[in-house]
Amino acid sequence: MQTHDTIVALASGQGLAAIALIRLSGHDAIAITNKVFKGKDLLEQASHTLHFGTIRDGVKIIDEVLVAVFKAPHSFTTENAIEISCHGSPVIVKEIIKVLLKNGARLAEPGEFTKRAFLNGKMDLAQAEAVGDLIHAETDTARQVALQQMRGGFSKDLAVLREELIHFASLVELELDFGEEDVEFAKRDDLRNLVIKIQHYITPLIASFDQGNVIKNGIPTVIAGKPNSGKSTLLNALLNEERAIVSDIPGTTRDFIEDEIVLGGIAFRFVDTAGLRETTDIVESIGIERTLERMNKASLILYLYDLANTSIEEIEAQEALLTGLSGAIIIRVGNKVDKAKAELLNYVNAKEFVLISAAQQQSLGPLKDKILEKVNRQEVKQGDAIVTSLRHYQQLTQTHEALERVLEGLMTEISGDLIAMDIRQALHYLGELTGAITTDDLLDNIFSKFCIGK
Amino acid sequence: MQTHDTIVALASGQGLAAIALIRLSGHDAIAITNKVFKGKDLLEQASHTLHFGTIRDGVKIIDEVLVAVFKAPHSFTTENAIEISCHGSPVIVKEIIKVLLKNGARLAEPGEFTKRAFLNGKMDLAQAEAVGDLIHAETDTARQVALQQMRGGFSKDLAVLREELIHFASLVELELDFGEEDVEFAKRDDLRNLVIKIQHYITPLIASFDQGNVIKNGIPTVIAGKPNSGKSTLLNALLNEERAIVSDIPGTTRDFIEDEIVLGGIAFRFVDTAGLRETTDIVESIGIERTLERMNKASLILYLYDLANTSIEEIEAQEALLTGLSGAIIIRVGNKVDKAKAELLNYVNAKEFVLISAAQQQSLGPLKDKILEKVNRQEVKQGDAIVTSLRHYQQLTQTHEALERVLEGLMTEISGDLIAMDIRQALHYLGELTGAITTDDLLDNIFSKFCIGK
Repeated sequence: MQTHDTIVALASGQGLAAIALIRLSGHDAIAITNKVFKGKDLLEQASHTLHFGTIRDGVKIIDEVLVAVFKAPHSFTTENAIEISCHGSPVIVKEIIKVLLKNGARLAEPGEFTKRAFLNGKMDLAQAEAVGDLIHAETDTARQVALQQMRGGFSKDLAVLREELIHFASLVELELDFGEEDVEFAKRDDLRNLVIKIQHYITPLIASFDQGNVIKNGIPTVIAGKPNSGKSTLLNALLNEERAIVSDIPGTTRDFIEDEIVLGGIAFRFVDTAGLRETTDIVESIGIERTLERMNKASLILYLYDLANTSIEEIEAQEALLTGLSGAIIIRVGNKVDKAKAELLNYVNAKEFVLISAAQQQSLGPLKDKILEKVNRQEVKQGDAIVTSLRHYQQLTQTHEALERVLEGLMTEISGDLIAMDIRQALHYLGELTGAITTDDLLDNIFSKFCIGK
Repeated sequence: MQTHDTIVALASGQGLAAIALIRLSGHDAIAITNKVFKGKDLLEQASHTLHFGTIRDGVKIIDEVLVAVFKAPHSFTTENAIEISCHGSPVIVKEIIKVLLKNGARLAEPGEFTKRAFLNGKMDLAQAEAVGDLIHAETDTARQVALQQMRGGFSKDLAVLREELIHFASLVELELDFGEEDVEFAKRDDLRNLVIKIQHYITPLIASFDQGNVIKNGIPTVIAGKPNSGKSTLLNALLNEERAIVSDIPGTTRDFIEDEIVLGGIAFRFVDTAGLRETTDIVESIGIERTLERMNKASLILYLYDLANTSIEEIEAQEALLTGLSGAIIIRVGNKVDKAKAELLNYVNAKEFVLISAAQQQSLGPLKDKILEKVNRQEVKQGDAIVTSLRHYQQLTQTHEALERVLEGLMTEISGDLIAMDIRQALHYLGELTGAITTDDLLDNIFSKFCIGK
């Protein structure tokens, strides 16, 4: 498909580490590495073998390394490929990459290895995109859904359905060639059945995007409430607990996402917490408008009442405000429950309040349970096809619309050329999803978001 | 030497990346991985081969991975070993390590892979230490010296010499067994020649530590001068140039060392720059004492004069102060040379001043040349044996002293038991250097400074 020069990049994490992994792909990957490697003749080695030796720049020895040889087509990109594990010093990585560049490789662009895997037919576009999603997965659920998609998932099925539809498109277009004659190569009933089959496959995928989007991007959450209701205390209590959980295996603390907690496989991202992170609530002289603006950013609102210093009348006044909000799920939280008067407790107990003491980290568990109950998280099972990408969602929706028009056309027995046009549109959207149809812009847009080395 | 359980750790850099590398070592490394790997039976595979498949926790697929198999004794540790390359998401790394722990591996301590390589006789202690130095090398020269030491360097030679000395020690001690009888198994001339041979080997090593220390730890440098002489401007000009240089290959920018530049393979660390980094010199109301204190921390002082606002008398007064300093190399820098009066220029030209304009980044090159000239950096050639470790330096020095006493004893013909004692001491120090003699404390001290996964 292209003449492939040989690309090189650091593929493992940056900075000091025990081991760093440098990766090459392209026709000359093995030959170029062989020029700087001393130990064995890499050109003579079988695919999927590892070789100890040194990387040299002339007489200068840069490092002792292990070189893995992958011969086309048995590599990630289907091209000849090499992986060099060296000592994890940025100085060494730089020297090795420099000598490889000198010998004919060039620096890889972000995502270029995966892009080549796609262009060489190793995977379709939706699978290639899932490679990136897999690396960026922040929860085990996101990992599972991305892996499912990378291993084929719905895009393989869609490719098969698209082939069937192409067959009908050809037949309908063949009819048009016969002009005036009243021929019908494409049996209308079979076409209708195929379109309905595709609709049946697509519809739950479209519906899954709500859940998929939450899995991939998390739920924007706001903690709101009057000054001194304990918002910053609650935020810190939730975050500190999370921090204690994620760091139990060295080296796997994720690049820390400020203000996020993971419950039941879902990331809850606390929005607009700059003010809350101050040590006191004193700075919070923000007006009603600012509060509403913040709450409108959220899909979930934890609304705090200070039970030690609030009257029933005040609660009812704020509730009137909250009912004006649409869209977000609101969870009412009664804070400082240990200092609440009996009358007030009776009042909030009658309503659906979660009662906590943020300062004493009391009842955070029940609060988390309530959050999960309210967001109505469905369990993701292995094998579930879930759409997490906005791009896929849009293309599926557009496919669905075009297929609806095909069905309408069949019902109203409109002319073959109009039906052919709608089928072509459906094919186009499906093709962009699987990557059967691509543009440079689309590919650039997708792969530029990848890491270097992937 | 030990019963080796199987250890596991992330070996590549932390955080998001294209690929992460998880490493296992120990008798059951292959068997444990085989329990969670689906693709091939790893127990049936040859050493140094790579296998594609999935890592699973029961029916749950965690990731698609490549597994490298190393069979004892052909691995870094000489034990059975596995390297798993997975997608570089911390979530995936954590899940894979968790399932390996569940199946019988345990988390590795820092440096435990290298410690095992040492304990299993794959390398001596000085070589093992060099593995850590190699990873932490911040300059190409430091990399070169660490690599040389890791590949054997002087410690291999010392081990041979130590064996020869052990032979003599045994002979001398055998003489003692014969008590009153006047036997001489150890020929005194041969012993003297061996001791002199060892001294000849050790002496240049001891002398190399001055250079080795600079290569490993850099040169503490201070920028001094009166307020408004342009110290912060010079510091920033030097650091910004450095920053532009180091970041030309993506992913190889070192974990940034604040306030360090690398010239001619040597790191110059700017000491006590907190005050300088302020945007203005206004904060610098520090007194003479504070200035002297700062300068005394340094091995190199760049002393700035503001040529636009300084008289010859003022320069002479400050020079009187500078001559009171001992130890550090001082380079006089005339700043704002573009605004200097002719008379002053004539004066500083007659002295050894480097004339620059820090604000206009003018003549920074000649300043760097002067720095390198002054620190009298010797070129390090491939194969040079250079001691960079204080521990090695101390043990070599103590060996040298013990051998001096042996020579003196031979000269004054003291009794065999005293000579034997001095030989034993020399053997002890040499043995600690190569690791022929170790204590748990010594090993803990060395390997606890390593990365996890090395």
